[in-house]
Amino acid sequence: MGLRIGMGVDFHQLVEGRDLWLGGVKIPHVKGALGHSDADVLLHAICDALLGAACLGDIGVHFPDTDNSFKNIDSKILLAKSAALIHAEGYSIVNIDTALCLQAPKIKPYIPHMQQTIAGILGLTVKDVSIKATTTERMGFVGREEGLMAYATVLLQSV
Amino acid sequence: MGLRIGMGVDFHQLVEGRDLWLGGVKIPHVKGALGHSDADVLLHAICDALLGAACLGDIGVHFPDTDNSFKNIDSKILLAKSAALIHAEGYSIVNIDTALCLQAPKIKPYIPHMQQTIAGILGLTVKDVSIKATTTERMGFVGREEGLMAYATVLLQSV
Amino acid sequence: MGLRIGMGVDFHQLVEGRDLWLGGVKIPHVKGALGHSDADVLLHAICDALLGAACLGDIGVHFPDTDNSFKNIDSKILLAKSAALIHAEGYSIVNIDTALCLQAPKIKPYIPHMQQTIAGILGLTVKDVSIKATTTERMGFVGREEGLMAYATVLLQSV
Ligand SMILES: [Zn+2]
Ligand SMILES: [Zn+2]
Ligand SMILES: [Zn+2]
Repeated sequence: MGLRIGMGVDFHQLVEGRDLWLGGVKIPHVKGALGHSDADVLLHAICDALLGAACLGDIGVHFPDTDNSFKNIDSKILLAKSAALIHAEGYSIVNIDTALCLQAPKIKPYIPHMQQTIAGILGLTVKDVSIKATTTERMGFVGREEGLMAYATVLLQSV
Repeated sequence: MGLRIGMGVDFHQLVEGRDLWLGGVKIPHVKGALGHSDADVLLHAICDALLGAACLGDIGVHFPDTDNSFKNIDSKILLAKSAALIHAEGYSIVNIDTALCLQAPKIKPYIPHMQQTIAGILGLTVKDVSIKATTTERMGFVGREEGLMAYATVLLQSV
Repeated sequence: MGLRIGMGVDFHQLVEGRDLWLGGVKIPHVKGALGHSDADVLLHAICDALLGAACLGDIGVHFPDTDNSFKNIDSKILLAKSAALIHAEGYSIVNIDTALCLQAPKIKPYIPHMQQTIAGILGLTVKDVSIKATTTERMGFVGREEGLMAYATVLLQSV
């Protein structure tokens, strides 16, 4: 058969004085995501879904936040490394679907650029990289703009 | 191959003076879900999972809450429209699994009716539309009954 | 075709005076998870994903917390029962991917033991049972260590 399913979820605080990177794209905003790397919550969720589908551990295992070589690292590098890990196991990506949960800003205008960025790194077409967005209707830590979260699901096949 | 995976997540506030629609069924309760449409969190999560699997954007792209034609709209119409969009791309639904997260009321008695409603709209059998329910054990905005959320995952195949 | 997708999500409060069971393994910690059973949030999410993929209801339907026979029950028994239910429907498990969301303690050292435990119950190899872990970056009820949550996704095939 050769199909495998994976999922990822990630969370980051939003704070002033940091850039907001989402899906490999820098988004103009009064706050940015806090983290050891560039804190790209969407790319991290995708990395975890890829690694999980191939049963290769998680992003914290491969890119620990105790390792200074990953300090402020561009998460596009982590995505490329995660893809290389699953390719080395003999898997290719069928499709990816994601959901970004954040109260602000509106990210719809940036989604095509995010899709192109992710598809380019993974060797996919943009039709295989779905990015959806929703608020939490002002509820919880996402609704209070204390942070943001992202979900990803992937389908892999053996090549 | 022709298989595609999708996921959806949705959130709505619970307020007095609104009806509570879940899975296309009106549920007797002291509060209802707030939103531009009828705010059916389960149908919205399923719409997003369908659209996401086919990489067609999200429910906010197709049915924007700035469009008065969707004001208080029955989300069963949005589900039918979402299904038509994925069918037009050449996909059919293999199966859907969902989880409703709400503290109250108990929705178990309404699940068969929800399954029949959704399966009827999508041209599926009830065995292809799974609806599960859980509380959040009184934690967070769901646990405080400020709101509710739903998750959906779908598998599509090319017809 | 014979493939089916499922997902599960579960939540439990963390309180003093209870053991912390995760993935069938007892984890040393100052708090444990509160629940009618042993409150193993990871095994419950997997049970729900299995049951959901086969459209057999949810963990609350099969193992209600109003039934004294499930009081403080080892959730490994619930997982074995859930697996028996899907096998009786003619399904086998392709792979499982999960994410545990908790602020503390670090569970990475326990993951191989959890994988072995779950794979043993389900008749799988450890490469078919992925367990990932993340904090919520100190946000929300998980971040305040009031509770923990888990997500699971599964792919089934008809045997
Ligand atoms: Zn992250
Ligand atoms: Zn909605
Ligand atoms: Zn539970």
